[in-house]
Amino acid sequence: MEKYTKSMSRLIQALKKMPGVGPKSAERMAFHILRLPHSEAKALAYSILKVKESIKFCKVCGNLSEEDSCNICSSPQRDKDIICVVEQPTDIVSIEKSGCYNGLYHVLGGSLSPLDGVGPENLRILELLARIKTQRAKEIIVATDSDSEGETTALYLSRLLRKEKVKATRIAYGLPMGSNLEYADQVTLAKALQGRNPI
Amino acid sequence: MEKYTKSMSRLIQALKKMPGVGPKSAERMAFHILRLPHSEAKALAYSILKVKESIKFCKVCGNLSEEDSCNICSSPQRDKDIICVVEQPTDIVSIEKSGCYNGLYHVLGGSLSPLDGVGPENLRILELLARIKTQRAKEIIVATDSDSEGETTALYLSRLLRKEKVKATRIAYGLPMGSNLEYADQVTLAKALQGRNPI
Repeated sequence: MEKYTKSMSRLIQALKKMPGVGPKSAERMAFHILRLPHSEAKALAYSILKVKESIKFCKVCGNLSEEDSCNICSSPQRDKDIICVVEQPTDIVSIEKSGCYNGLYHVLGGSLSPLDGVGPENLRILELLARIKTQRAKEIIVATDSDSEGETTALYLSRLLRKEKVKATRIAYGLPMGSNLEYADQVTLAKALQGRNPI
Repeated sequence: MEKYTKSMSRLIQALKKMPGVGPKSAERMAFHILRLPHSEAKALAYSILKVKESIKFCKVCGNLSEEDSCNICSSPQRDKDIICVVEQPTDIVSIEKSGCYNGLYHVLGGSLSPLDGVGPENLRILELLARIKTQRAKEIIVATDSDSEGETTALYLSRLLRKEKVKATRIAYGLPMGSNLEYADQVTLAKALQGRNPI
């Protein structure tokens, strides 16, 4: 005996594929959608379709955008001398939330991972080098992840950037703010010790 | 500075309204949708629209259905002698999952709650009485929630059913008091069904 009607179980199946949504949550969401006014359910469905239709990548930095150039690249208030290199567009959102950065970005589209068949030619590295020349950027901040792939990518970029005679920096790694030394893992602690600064 | 494009923030806003979805989860879901193949994103959007379009209520029991009569009412394998009275269609799903019940259902559409202005005339009680007569049901299991509104409804029904000369039972208190039927675990529900008592 089917517990749900066809359209309900199809919706539950589709919702279950979302990250962090299990069978119970998917059921609750489906019943929530069923109880929504028609207009709100339509708005949800159309916003899903709209996102897939209208989002493309910024031709300059590779960020998500609805225009050819994203709203960071086209903003006159941004400092065009600094470019922060990140792996994914989601990383831009995280850095923007910190509110501490006013330069431009460059999205690589991933990190070097020979085991997964991702080499330098698969990342937007040539585009970065071209941008540095045309834009005359003064500083490149490499903000790739601190996992092994991200570290490899940062090392690879640092060698390339040395030739370009541009100041290249890497964001600091150490203890997260508000954390306890007792609970920090050894690799983080080692990094934090190596990167100590005068006070 | 807007962190997202217009269509992304609209999608995140729509997702945030779902039960159990906070701002962080909504962001993760939105980025997940962005990464989905076009076909899967379309499937998700259309399944939302489809549910709102195609789901109606069974004319017999009030369960969710895509036809005039739901798949439980129209099944020849179901025991037509027993009717289990529940508050909401979601309660049917919970009982079906326990796998211990093979009779029919009747959805009241809520519970008696004078403070919220819900009286007997707002529930599908007259339909239940009519069904008992036409269908010659032998037993009515009252499976309303075990909160005060559900208990009140059960008491009210028990008085009505006494006049109808039909065996009326209430699911047993394997259910923890004050809880909702929707969230009960399957074993507890099965226990409660087996231990039903005359009222």
